[in-house]
Amino acid sequence: MSTFGKVFRVTTYGESHCASVGAIVDGCPPGLELSPADIQVQLSRRRPGQSNLTTPRNEKDLVQLQSGTEHGVTLGTPIGLLVKNEDQRPHDYTETDLYPRPSHADYTYLEKYGVKASSGGGRSSARETIGRVAAGAIAEKYLKTAYGIEIVAFVSSVGKIHLPEALAPPSLVASDDDEDNDDVDDAISAEFRQLLSSITREEVDKHPTRCPHPATAEKMTQRIIRAKDASDSIGGTVTCVIRNVPAGLGEPVFDKFEAELAHAMLSIPATKAFEVGSGFRGTEVPGSKHNDAFVRRSDGSLGTKTNWSGGIQGGITNGEDIYFRIGFKSPATISQAQDTVQYDGTPGTLAARGRHDPCVVPRAVPIVEAMAAIVVLDQLLQQDARKTAASRLPPIKTLPPTMVMPPKRV
Amino acid sequence: MSTFGKVFRVTTYGESHCASVGAIVDGCPPGLELSPADIQVQLSRRRPGQSNLTTPRNEKDLVQLQSGTEHGVTLGTPIGLLVKNEDQRPHDYTETDLYPRPSHADYTYLEKYGVKASSGGGRSSARETIGRVAAGAIAEKYLKTAYGIEIVAFVSSVGKIHLPEALAPPSLVASDDDEDNDDVDDAISAEFRQLLSSITREEVDKHPTRCPHPATAEKMTQRIIRAKDASDSIGGTVTCVIRNVPAGLGEPVFDKFEAELAHAMLSIPATKAFEVGSGFRGTEVPGSKHNDAFVRRSDGSLGTKTNWSGGIQGGITNGEDIYFRIGFKSPATISQAQDTVQYDGTPGTLAARGRHDPCVVPRAVPIVEAMAAIVVLDQLLQQDARKTAASRLPPIKTLPPTMVMPPKRV
Amino acid sequence: MSTFGKVFRVTTYGESHCASVGAIVDGCPPGLELSPADIQVQLSRRRPGQSNLTTPRNEKDLVQLQSGTEHGVTLGTPIGLLVKNEDQRPHDYTETDLYPRPSHADYTYLEKYGVKASSGGGRSSARETIGRVAAGAIAEKYLKTAYGIEIVAFVSSVGKIHLPEALAPPSLVASDDDEDNDDVDDAISAEFRQLLSSITREEVDKHPTRCPHPATAEKMTQRIIRAKDASDSIGGTVTCVIRNVPAGLGEPVFDKFEAELAHAMLSIPATKAFEVGSGFRGTEVPGSKHNDAFVRRSDGSLGTKTNWSGGIQGGITNGEDIYFRIGFKSPATISQAQDTVQYDGTPGTLAARGRHDPCVVPRAVPIVEAMAAIVVLDQLLQQDARKTAASRLPPIKTLPPTMVMPPKRV
Amino acid sequence: MSTFGKVFRVTTYGESHCASVGAIVDGCPPGLELSPADIQVQLSRRRPGQSNLTTPRNEKDLVQLQSGTEHGVTLGTPIGLLVKNEDQRPHDYTETDLYPRPSHADYTYLEKYGVKASSGGGRSSARETIGRVAAGAIAEKYLKTAYGIEIVAFVSSVGKIHLPEALAPPSLVASDDDEDNDDVDDAISAEFRQLLSSITREEVDKHPTRCPHPATAEKMTQRIIRAKDASDSIGGTVTCVIRNVPAGLGEPVFDKFEAELAHAMLSIPATKAFEVGSGFRGTEVPGSKHNDAFVRRSDGSLGTKTNWSGGIQGGITNGEDIYFRIGFKSPATISQAQDTVQYDGTPGTLAARGRHDPCVVPRAVPIVEAMAAIVVLDQLLQQDARKTAASRLPPIKTLPPTMVMPPKRV
Repeated sequence: MSTFGKVFRVTTYGESHCASVGAIVDGCPPGLELSPADIQVQLSRRRPGQSNLTTPRNEKDLVQLQSGTEHGVTLGTPIGLLVKNEDQRPHDYTETDLYPRPSHADYTYLEKYGVKASSGGGRSSARETIGRVAAGAIAEKYLKTAYGIEIVAFVSSVGKIHLPEALAPPSLVASDDDEDNDDVDDAISAEFRQLLSSITREEVDKHPTRCPHPATAEKMTQRIIRAKDASDSIGGTVTCVIRNVPAGLGEPVFDKFEAELAHAMLSIPATKAFEVGSGFRGTEVPGSKHNDAFVRRSDGSLGTKTNWSGGIQGGITNGEDIYFRIGFKSPATISQAQDTVQYDGTPGTLAARGRHDPCVVPRAVPIVEAMAAIVVLDQLLQQDARKTAASRLPPIKTLPPTMVMPPKRV
Repeated sequence: MSTFGKVFRVTTYGESHCASVGAIVDGCPPGLELSPADIQVQLSRRRPGQSNLTTPRNEKDLVQLQSGTEHGVTLGTPIGLLVKNEDQRPHDYTETDLYPRPSHADYTYLEKYGVKASSGGGRSSARETIGRVAAGAIAEKYLKTAYGIEIVAFVSSVGKIHLPEALAPPSLVASDDDEDNDDVDDAISAEFRQLLSSITREEVDKHPTRCPHPATAEKMTQRIIRAKDASDSIGGTVTCVIRNVPAGLGEPVFDKFEAELAHAMLSIPATKAFEVGSGFRGTEVPGSKHNDAFVRRSDGSLGTKTNWSGGIQGGITNGEDIYFRIGFKSPATISQAQDTVQYDGTPGTLAARGRHDPCVVPRAVPIVEAMAAIVVLDQLLQQDARKTAASRLPPIKTLPPTMVMPPKRV
Repeated sequence: MSTFGKVFRVTTYGESHCASVGAIVDGCPPGLELSPADIQVQLSRRRPGQSNLTTPRNEKDLVQLQSGTEHGVTLGTPIGLLVKNEDQRPHDYTETDLYPRPSHADYTYLEKYGVKASSGGGRSSARETIGRVAAGAIAEKYLKTAYGIEIVAFVSSVGKIHLPEALAPPSLVASDDDEDNDDVDDAISAEFRQLLSSITREEVDKHPTRCPHPATAEKMTQRIIRAKDASDSIGGTVTCVIRNVPAGLGEPVFDKFEAELAHAMLSIPATKAFEVGSGFRGTEVPGSKHNDAFVRRSDGSLGTKTNWSGGIQGGITNGEDIYFRIGFKSPATISQAQDTVQYDGTPGTLAARGRHDPCVVPRAVPIVEAMAAIVVLDQLLQQDARKTAASRLPPIKTLPPTMVMPPKRV
Repeated sequence: MSTFGKVFRVTTYGESHCASVGAIVDGCPPGLELSPADIQVQLSRRRPGQSNLTTPRNEKDLVQLQSGTEHGVTLGTPIGLLVKNEDQRPHDYTETDLYPRPSHADYTYLEKYGVKASSGGGRSSARETIGRVAAGAIAEKYLKTAYGIEIVAFVSSVGKIHLPEALAPPSLVASDDDEDNDDVDDAISAEFRQLLSSITREEVDKHPTRCPHPATAEKMTQRIIRAKDASDSIGGTVTCVIRNVPAGLGEPVFDKFEAELAHAMLSIPATKAFEVGSGFRGTEVPGSKHNDAFVRRSDGSLGTKTNWSGGIQGGITNGEDIYFRIGFKSPATISQAQDTVQYDGTPGTLAARGRHDPCVVPRAVPIVEAMAAIVVLDQLLQQDARKTAASRLPPIKTLPPTMVMPPKRV
């Protein structure tokens, strides 16, 4: 369905060529300062036409707040918001309409609904993500104001162009092929952990690919241009870090933090893969090396020495940086001719199509950040309910020491 | 929370050492023949003590149906079911209780709840999955009876031991390092597609590792034994295929088929990664090669020539085999001593612990199958509601041909 | 929260003086012919300024469809819709703002959210119901097209002015005071059942009070005018019938048909009471007289001779007319001065206020119909899922005859 | 479905003659002292066989806690609980099985599910409410411990036998028939408000009818015995008060406090009517008299002088006593012969049946209390999430005074 979240709830609407796309954000904490500019900044990072790497469809995507705020402050009531579709051009029926586009949603939408929007991707269009990004910006404003939570996503690969090994997420580090060798050279590289702890959106945006390593970014640009010039497309991965999330978020057993994150990320168009922390790489590292030993932080709280866990243990955040990686397939829309069949099975060649993004990952960055923010706030509110309720109970003095948090060492 | 699903809904309860673990299954179609044996078969594949590769905790895990059936037929009302915990031994407080186990849920459960079960993993224990497996077996019985849907999971890697390249899921096929080389040798290998289309549980169970390739299975066994002998642990991946799923399942935009699958899979203990279809590999293959061209099947319906999509396009099933891969980290519980700190920050060494699974993937196989079955049935029921409702409307004759499924070619 | 429904889901937004009010309707069956006019007709019945009995706030309330349809046909994707607030006048702070309005939501909204809209009722304003009415009109269009379901509400009382006894809902029929007399004169009067089975919206709308009995309607008018002239207000009841609902709707145990109806109705502003079928009156009628004996209908199906049950038995519809009654309190907003206290507890007199509806029940009629339609469609889709799923199972031949529907008599 | 609640969630299972009935309670605050005795006390008040006024089916209904607590303290994880059905006798097929019982759920369950339990009411049996009562007792334990919240229900009428007017809920006070007389003699009687503020379960339980007025209770007993002796049944009403609920609970617009209450109450078997505060009576009292003027309480907070609102304004609690009334129809199961038709339409006489409750309201008292407790806790947790989240935001200093709570008078 088109609603995400249990307590902080986002419901979206809109197709590629209808009057507007938008969302209703329900459950936003009241008393939060919120202006359209807070939202616009992320919409502008998402909008097409930012560089020569993206689709020429150029829309300003200006958000209009409909409700839920007054004098720039949230009321706690639903926030209605919309962005007009400037491009509502009528669609001329052409021979290409006889063909379901390969790996696109034409065929499956018709199988599902029996009817579909006449042109463009309809609801499967990436324009649908505008509502998410707007809603995510609201969640993020709260998280930043109340907790200093920071969410930064960046492009970690385009095609076969990856960040250098030292900066790469665990699964992108080349694995030793020696099956008997359990050595893990440096757990997770210090450079990568440093990148996670310090990367900012400003740094990410310095290059149109949104890859924070200039040399790699340049190679990625070339790769995207090569795809574009070939009327082809190419995929990539986005890595995201969430900093300063308090310990205790995540709702076992089905709504573990990583399960909600995975749900959120795999709901973004064109995604095919998700991993958190050590991810697929963590399947190859023995427990004795993969376990994150605890350490005492300077403030007396516990942290972990390594962070293979990606900030989540037992489905619950532990206070360390949360990081994860998402794989976006190469876009299905390409302007090459394709040999395929028509809806009725007639073989033929689907002729070249028009404008499209040769690579979606640069524009996917704010979408990933938005969905992450929605997940964190929704989980945070659920945990707030529990902690607040528990805090009203008298202390239980009779429990065995194995059941409660031992007192801090003085 | 402890409920999964919207229309077919599974709610579970139970810790590692309480009286029982179990589930309530709500929304099961009425009129389905269902006996405890239908459920027991998967519980027995999940239970510990099946081979020398698993934990010595040996419980029979016999399911007791409490409600929702009569004369071996489902009534459509909630099915209550439980499995007694044979092992409810009291826990003696020892020095090890001063330590949160690294990468385990001890610390995060205390941060979340302020209190935790005195021994074992409590709710984070793998015993929690019994309710899922039982519920999944019910879903599966329906899917098989009504549609002939088949769900088969198998172990595709243990540590660095992978299936041979020809049989491997896309991401496990070694990637050409030449960044300028877009060639994809054989799309997805014919052997792998053949494996997906034919693998059975009987074949999977022939080897205790549940890897369907005997030579690889043998190497996996050695790898697990090496971990066991070293008081260590090792992770692995499980690959799963779902066959004969009708086109049209999945609820865009937030509850796309792959998003629900990812949510379900990442809610299984010890999972860190998920990919569907081409997964992370699909990010490197240009759209022109990654797109699944349509073909006309012998029955006149459309299929796809390749299946990089993994049976899902636009978040909706297309009728092709659905396949996905899940990464399970190396278990946190190891019997080696570990240098870490106590809850209060005091550095020390957590002494060796007792019994555990050195590798969970063989026993994870039925859990993956169960969660997959729950997702498919829940999505199927939602689509049934839509299709049935739409079927009662008069045909719309005025729609442009771009909006409806063109007539089949005769 | 601001979402109602499980499969057919309505999410609304909007305060009394923000930019617009609206809704997202998710889960609408695809392929339904739907035009703005289908929605406008009910919005116009709801809008203020229809007669001298309502508030002078005069807004046209024109609906704008944003998404989810094309060429006048629903796509199955979310339908975004909005109605602009013409009246967004700034609020001047006056002494009256020192007072929480008695029986209004000023005080409780501040207690809940800590902040509230500066003027008018904010989210507690009746303008919030616009989204419901629009969504309900969509549900109703489906129900009428697919099933011929008819939903008609009417005013059954204003203050102490009730429909004549022969036409009155059961609880409005004067009860015999003789505690030992179990006689129920005529079960439910034939006139009342006739009214339920035949009343149309056209008849209801013949009089501005929306009471279908002209003489009573005239008395109601006088009663409302008396309240208006006295700067006072008066309440009333609305009775609603739903015809042609198939048997089998309602989701025991918590989402029984009447439980969902009650939830829906008590969510309408100013409601304080709900009863279905015999309602409170049914508590006084002995079972032997209250039980609805079955009869064979001309088409061979079963009906009931009487209909004390109001078309619902065991929480599930039985195919008979569903009827229920809702009590709306006298509006809290009156233009008399009121002795009360300020927020800080200072006693004083809240001066007269401006425009308001002296009686809301005439305008409540389309709101009640809308919420009823939403409930019916949501339940219908849930039952469609079940029936369709069950229909795919092979017949169970071994069940005892007590467990299945006996064959129809030929 | 069989789950109630959003954050505090109760899922039940069980038919009348299956192995057990029970529930899973998810979202209970951790750290609450909870013993089986806390639950048993309400189960025992609900169980049959307490007096000669109830069904002779005599079961002890002993609760068995399965999970979610240790050492008598809740862990915050799901609490599994079950009560064995002692009575699982096989059902002999008799001629009565040819008949759907009038006003019972036989017919509608078959229409809904196509199959039903062979004997008794199956899932429509009142035994289903055991899970609710157990879950409600847990909610209540929290509410009492953390807030001193008290929930007391009592029988306010049986058939035509009502509490004396001075003690009666508003709608049971005889209305002046003079349509032009707006006088409301004493708003809500002081005696009734006194009863609400002081009634205890001990007082309620002094008489087997659970009516707190001895003389009326005696008349009720006679009325029930008259029904029993006549092989008939009789209905009644239950009134319930909830004291010490903090202001601010209820989730506009669809999940207003009264909407959730109504949903909960109308989900109890045999209920047909619900009213809160002034209820249907409030429709007849002009706003000027119905409005609850605010007063300053001794602690400086605001209260209301009268309480027509029943403690809820704008769908949100205001801190005053919450009171409501539920109508239970006369039980459908009677042991008289009834003229009706068989499933196949053949007219005939359904012969006398066995044991049943001639009147359910005395046993309904703990069920009403349970559902009330579940609603309050679920709403409380949702509000806790909001308030806690809002409390972390910096104060907004620029809002106009109409938008925030004015400072308290010193």
